[in-house]
Amino acid sequence: MGQRQAIGIGLLGLGTVGSEVYRLLLDHDALTRAVGRPLVVKRVAVARADRPRPVPAHLLTTDGWTVVNDAEVDIVVELIGGLEPARGYMLRALEAGKSVVTANKAVLAAYGPELYAQVQSSGGHLHFEASVGGGVPLIKPISESLAAARLTAIVAILNGTTNFILTRMAHSGWSFNDALAEAQRRGFAEADPTNDVDGHDAAAKLAILASVAFHCQITSDDVFREGVRSITPRDFAYAKELGYEIKPLAIARKHNGDVEARVHPALVPLDHPLAQVPDEFNAVLVEGVNVGRVVFSGRGAGGTPTATAVIGDIITVAKDLVAGVRGRSPIGTPVPARVRPIEDVAVPYYLSLQVVDRPGVFARVATVIGEEQVSIASIVQKSRSEIADAILVTHDAPGRAVQRVLARLRALDVVKAITNVIRVQDSL
Amino acid sequence: MGQRQAIGIGLLGLGTVGSEVYRLLLDHDALTRAVGRPLVVKRVAVARADRPRPVPAHLLTTDGWTVVNDAEVDIVVELIGGLEPARGYMLRALEAGKSVVTANKAVLAAYGPELYAQVQSSGGHLHFEASVGGGVPLIKPISESLAAARLTAIVAILNGTTNFILTRMAHSGWSFNDALAEAQRRGFAEADPTNDVDGHDAAAKLAILASVAFHCQITSDDVFREGVRSITPRDFAYAKELGYEIKPLAIARKHNGDVEARVHPALVPLDHPLAQVPDEFNAVLVEGVNVGRVVFSGRGAGGTPTATAVIGDIITVAKDLVAGVRGRSPIGTPVPARVRPIEDVAVPYYLSLQVVDRPGVFARVATVIGEEQVSIASIVQKSRSEIADAILVTHDAPGRAVQRVLARLRALDVVKAITNVIRVQDSL
Repeated sequence: MGQRQAIGIGLLGLGTVGSEVYRLLLDHDALTRAVGRPLVVKRVAVARADRPRPVPAHLLTTDGWTVVNDAEVDIVVELIGGLEPARGYMLRALEAGKSVVTANKAVLAAYGPELYAQVQSSGGHLHFEASVGGGVPLIKPISESLAAARLTAIVAILNGTTNFILTRMAHSGWSFNDALAEAQRRGFAEADPTNDVDGHDAAAKLAILASVAFHCQITSDDVFREGVRSITPRDFAYAKELGYEIKPLAIARKHNGDVEARVHPALVPLDHPLAQVPDEFNAVLVEGVNVGRVVFSGRGAGGTPTATAVIGDIITVAKDLVAGVRGRSPIGTPVPARVRPIEDVAVPYYLSLQVVDRPGVFARVATVIGEEQVSIASIVQKSRSEIADAILVTHDAPGRAVQRVLARLRALDVVKAITNVIRVQDSL
Repeated sequence: MGQRQAIGIGLLGLGTVGSEVYRLLLDHDALTRAVGRPLVVKRVAVARADRPRPVPAHLLTTDGWTVVNDAEVDIVVELIGGLEPARGYMLRALEAGKSVVTANKAVLAAYGPELYAQVQSSGGHLHFEASVGGGVPLIKPISESLAAARLTAIVAILNGTTNFILTRMAHSGWSFNDALAEAQRRGFAEADPTNDVDGHDAAAKLAILASVAFHCQITSDDVFREGVRSITPRDFAYAKELGYEIKPLAIARKHNGDVEARVHPALVPLDHPLAQVPDEFNAVLVEGVNVGRVVFSGRGAGGTPTATAVIGDIITVAKDLVAGVRGRSPIGTPVPARVRPIEDVAVPYYLSLQVVDRPGVFARVATVIGEEQVSIASIVQKSRSEIADAILVTHDAPGRAVQRVLARLRALDVVKAITNVIRVQDSL
């Protein structure tokens, strides 16, 4: 920063969040009061030059490197998303000793360790509150206020789109496709919903949260991922009968020697703290040896809430720059983690089968399950002419045992179909 | 700190929280990793010297000033509670340029502005995450992550004891006294429960939260306060019939020119975010123009969770000391606030009356209410031989109008008793 009075901001991206960040940065008085020096936007990179923008023309560029390399830019605010060129911009900015504030979950979840290493070596700051939970404060409270909590588990709803879809399916009886269409109509889901409904978005967010909470290196690739497309209205009906909601969960646990991380739909008991989190809301439950359970929740996404988180980070960085502090990031120095394979993770399972409806069939199904050392906690059986729905909930069973059970059930002539297999989140 | 390598901690108080803080401070490796330098406990002040302590004898003193004045103490951790001598210790420590971490809600809510002024002038740090919500992160997320959220409202359950009491009354049908006795048996409530059940504890916490959230000076005295002793099983029965729970709320709102702050039991709709917060749990909902609603919740109190919050603050302060940062506190520079008198605060009211059970009586009651410009939203009337219970819920009505209504109802010969008057929290 040298002797300059103002702190220079460079903005990469002027989409929904970027435009809101720019608008909030115009509240000069409040920001100057918070930081002790003015914040001034020096450069703004946009994808296309031919659109009207609320930004003075002399600040605009279509070349992100112009922003990153500008000597007057102290804080690079990266809001373009995706892996490249975002990663390159961020690394270059950090190498040059600049600080970075980002909402980019993908790049953090993929290249976190590389970025954090650069923070350590060149002294800029890296903050990313907006990458998870939109406006709901998560990263800073977990890394700072709960620094002594010895966190061991995260159970969360991190994707508002899938929570909206499953809530509508549960409460309005809609099909997956109808609920998805409504989410798209409301602007929650993109035209190509893969990123949300197949769990990529939640997996990236979980990787970031687990890295911060457990002080270890977890990337998106470490997270087991299963989408919500296979959930049917029938699953909701049986879940309800058994006393469960179905929620899109992201779960990470720290064991003694390894870490488990997974994103999938799950049956949760009605009195679970996340069972009633509705619609597009996000919620994060963390549990620690020293703190018990703490829940953070809110509507999460949206341009203005996310921009608010970005501005909070900008204020934090700017205050640290004014104070002469170097090299801060909520991640600290994460250590490599051994990831527990999903086959070794033991949880209860909900199995939805269609079986031939005659005496003795259920005994054959139960025998197969028992022979694989999986025990049954509850059963619902409903006759529908020739075929019966058989819904089983097991006790804790390792993924590999359940795979063996499924292979053997498929081979039974009395089992006409395995309609669905969904994990159950009974504890926590 | 001079050239010394370690950061010196002085501990005032070795009760439940103090003992846990001391125990957590013994985890030298984790703390050194977090801070970059060792933290060393230099002095511990206890009330009585004649008890066995887990602390080496040469560190112990019964004189708090010995701790505060010790040249090797960089951070004074104040856990004795109460106004004096805690206030004196904290001011002296700050004057000497030391930093203070405290869980003392009373002293902050009473003398906050004085302490914050001292932080500004002498450069030590002052942090107090543990003063509200025990282990649930609130102060830092609100002051930092939500710095740009333009918060306008806080609706919270800040006292675990009264939440436990009201939950038991609601769900087990207990009387106030039975629920209080159970809270005392479980160690939630003290022998003299005044501080909890009359709202003093929640009022102090609300004053702190509102000061941080709204950047203004709110003290305990600014908070309207009404306890929960008057709530009866009958109120729960009628509340349920009308679709409400009864919860011990703490509410603060920022209006254009003034601030409203109040602690009282309130009827909340069953789908309100705080309606299902059970037992001794705390929950804080904040709403901001730029962020919508965010909820923080958890079990709150307890020695270890509260100690975790204290250690989180100690780490924050120690890192700032290592980095050479001066004079940080989540409160910033609060400005004086005009407090809106409770008579001017308009909310819906629940009125529980006993009236003579004969035709025309209700019309007389309704006429009186209407003449004071208060309108009725719903009514339940239940005959019990000569006397009927008449339960009314009004639309928003200013406190002063409700006082006039009550005075006039008392004067009516057909009104035998005004059994209870409880505010309703319908919005937010």
